[in-house]
Amino acid sequence: MNRFENSPLYQIMHPHSVAFWGASSNPTGMGTVQLTQLLAMGFPGQVYPMHPRETEILGLKAYAHPADLPGPVDLAIFVLPTKVVPEVMEECGKAGIKRIIIVSAGFGEVGPDGQEMQNRLVEIARQYGITFLGPNCIGVVNTYSRLNTTFFPYDGSRGFVGLASQSGSFITQTFVSLEKLGLGFSQAVSVGNEAMIDQVACLEYLGDCPQTRVIGMYVEGIRRGREFFRVAREVSRKKPIVAYYVGGSESGRRAALSHTGVLAGPDRLYEGIFRQCGIIRARTMEELFDFCAVLGSQPLPRSDRVAVLTHSGGPGAAAADTAERTGMHLAVFSPQTVEALKQIVPHTASVANPVDLTFNRNPNDYTETIPGVLLADDSVDSMFLYTLLPWRRVMQTIMAMGKTADEAKIMADSFVAAQADAVVRTWTERGKPMVGGSFCTRDETFIRELQDRGFPVLPSPERAVRALAALTQYARYRGDAEH
Amino acid sequence: MNRFENSPLYQIMHPHSVAFWGASSNPTGMGTVQLTQLLAMGFPGQVYPMHPRETEILGLKAYAHPADLPGPVDLAIFVLPTKVVPEVMEECGKAGIKRIIIVSAGFGEVGPDGQEMQNRLVEIARQYGITFLGPNCIGVVNTYSRLNTTFFPYDGSRGFVGLASQSGSFITQTFVSLEKLGLGFSQAVSVGNEAMIDQVACLEYLGDCPQTRVIGMYVEGIRRGREFFRVAREVSRKKPIVAYYVGGSESGRRAALSHTGVLAGPDRLYEGIFRQCGIIRARTMEELFDFCAVLGSQPLPRSDRVAVLTHSGGPGAAAADTAERTGMHLAVFSPQTVEALKQIVPHTASVANPVDLTFNRNPNDYTETIPGVLLADDSVDSMFLYTLLPWRRVMQTIMAMGKTADEAKIMADSFVAAQADAVVRTWTERGKPMVGGSFCTRDETFIRELQDRGFPVLPSPERAVRALAALTQYARYRGDAEH
Repeated sequence: MNRFENSPLYQIMHPHSVAFWGASSNPTGMGTVQLTQLLAMGFPGQVYPMHPRETEILGLKAYAHPADLPGPVDLAIFVLPTKVVPEVMEECGKAGIKRIIIVSAGFGEVGPDGQEMQNRLVEIARQYGITFLGPNCIGVVNTYSRLNTTFFPYDGSRGFVGLASQSGSFITQTFVSLEKLGLGFSQAVSVGNEAMIDQVACLEYLGDCPQTRVIGMYVEGIRRGREFFRVAREVSRKKPIVAYYVGGSESGRRAALSHTGVLAGPDRLYEGIFRQCGIIRARTMEELFDFCAVLGSQPLPRSDRVAVLTHSGGPGAAAADTAERTGMHLAVFSPQTVEALKQIVPHTASVANPVDLTFNRNPNDYTETIPGVLLADDSVDSMFLYTLLPWRRVMQTIMAMGKTADEAKIMADSFVAAQADAVVRTWTERGKPMVGGSFCTRDETFIRELQDRGFPVLPSPERAVRALAALTQYARYRGDAEH
Repeated sequence: MNRFENSPLYQIMHPHSVAFWGASSNPTGMGTVQLTQLLAMGFPGQVYPMHPRETEILGLKAYAHPADLPGPVDLAIFVLPTKVVPEVMEECGKAGIKRIIIVSAGFGEVGPDGQEMQNRLVEIARQYGITFLGPNCIGVVNTYSRLNTTFFPYDGSRGFVGLASQSGSFITQTFVSLEKLGLGFSQAVSVGNEAMIDQVACLEYLGDCPQTRVIGMYVEGIRRGREFFRVAREVSRKKPIVAYYVGGSESGRRAALSHTGVLAGPDRLYEGIFRQCGIIRARTMEELFDFCAVLGSQPLPRSDRVAVLTHSGGPGAAAADTAERTGMHLAVFSPQTVEALKQIVPHTASVANPVDLTFNRNPNDYTETIPGVLLADDSVDSMFLYTLLPWRRVMQTIMAMGKTADEAKIMADSFVAAQADAVVRTWTERGKPMVGGSFCTRDETFIRELQDRGFPVLPSPERAVRALAALTQYARYRGDAEH
């Protein structure tokens, strides 16, 4: 077993059997809702509802005590009243259950009495060789094991974003945000009060996780500063880490304290730690996922010179403005590039940077020929592509040529797919970062086809360029770290 | 006729008959696409395609010359090659057509020769008493007249956001962004090179427009500084103006110059102008619409003390952090409010600000009782509500009580609608600003029901609080302006 599989988190994230405390015949109970989601995601292992009196819960046979169980249990989940947690934990310890997720709240985050109870949990755990996640957490999601221990329905597809979060909501309630980008979690952990497993342990674990290409962190405060520093520096040389820190303002600090009982530090201190560890800082949850989409899918740029390709002036100007505001530079094209562009573009177009095509002579000009020319230029390190190809307009055009709606639909789908292929072909062949941005969503075929091929399209030019800037910042760190 | 109806823009936005130059039997031609959209939106007036040779275009009888037309024409639209524009314009002038939208590009934005051509257009216009929009613009959208002169399909519903834009794309390609917020344009104008009708004219016009409750502007540079200042100050005392300015960076300035030929100014200068005119500055297109959603739908807050209500710690902490970073303050509740909250919330909840309910005892606690208590507190000026009520979880719960899927669906819909009613009731009764934020989209019933009742729900806690901060900034300006 390597370090990854040996991690206590590995066993929490990959159980073969789960014993679940807190579900009952009350359908609105928190525990019942949570067990419902575990079953709804199609977890393939054994599930044992545990209840002192009830014998069947959600169609499954229920058991009163761990000692009654017909087989071994890899993971216990507690959605129990605060007071009974220590007692049930001892029962688990005696029955040889070594991994627990404690969802129950009312511990360290509520004050000294709660902290004492929480300390008692750690004592019991040490006594029986247990490692637990929480308390006061929402659990975990592992899309590769079809494991969802949270109380939120989860349909998210498999992806490359690993998340370690001091907020449970940001594991579950944001999967719609990820989905908009055509992304999914690899694994996501809500750490709660971090009595035993903290952000540092998650970082190390996700750093080793082969499905995770980028790590996102929601941070209200870091508990083990020195270890965090060491692990983050190690991990960020292998894969990017993006952090969203809210504890730096006084209001954020107080909210964090009452939320997970963590003590946050001044913004400047965290800013410094993140910079020294090569952690890219996001300023919102949306930005966290935007950055993950790009940092998890792109080669590293050599420097900060970006090319902007658009057929609409406004999005081009917005992209150019954002590039400069985020510390990037607009690439100055070589004379050969300018000459090559002049052969392709109409007279209304601009061959400076942004390249503003105004309109296409040939559809592939925009999706393949011009991106190819731009990315081949040595003075271009990365590229932004304004991504717009309305399926409905394609349909209108084809139908105006006299095709039936059914014929046109097939032709439009295949035309748009071919355009997506052209973009992705150029992107992968040239080996330079390239990011799309559009005001359209995945409801638009072109966006969906691109995202489903692994090409990131973000919800606006500004957000796409900001993410390119984050990638560039990470590349600079990696370059410095290696020299 | 009042000033509004007397404006040349009024006649451009409310034509009874349109003559359209540039469409043909070539279905992929830009003009054909554009005429297709005009027809697709269901414009109820007369439409006359104009063509030197073709006699029928898109099923409509085509005419060679304005003199041949069977009736009067309120508006001409040109999607013509640059060189023929002056000549056709003269024809229009002779036939008594007084309003033109010139989509054709290749004028002032391409250099001195183009500028000369553009000057010629203005001369011809003056000679015949014509007022034209453009050149190099994409046209206009008026959802109340079902008028869409752009080349982009437009399904947007009627709304209260008026837009004046130096980018045509931001009129049409962003309507998906507006739709995500449950909003629509009232009227939107792409000004292009502004040879005759400029941003100042649009501002004055939209300031008078009764359907427009908030004005958005996309600005690459302002041409008539003094008039802009005067008109903006006048309008911003009646209704809020939100501007997104991209010309302030060197890259943005250069992109703007090649886009619409406008000369931008230093960021600091524009920042000062905006502040003095009471114009709220947005930093992205998304933010422009976020701010419009809130500034167009809310009463003005007395001051900057915000209450945050959440049932999830992370979104609450993110909202609190954003509030402080945007210059707001978290309200300190009165002892009576704290006492009232203690009677309602579970022991795991926080009755400080953010109020973090962790879970509901009674669904209306979250949507009505607690918001009512918070908004009644004199030390609360505005409120953020984390907006989450997953329809699917409601379904699961109802079905677990033994209902069939059909019964459950009806019950779930009516439960969620009742919760939306409760929020909106509290909001309207209390007369204080209240904004929702959620990671869910309009696909989620609760979000859709709220937005469709006029209650703004933005796509994240951070964006909702930033918009509240913008509203607070505007309220402060209005307060100062009135004293």
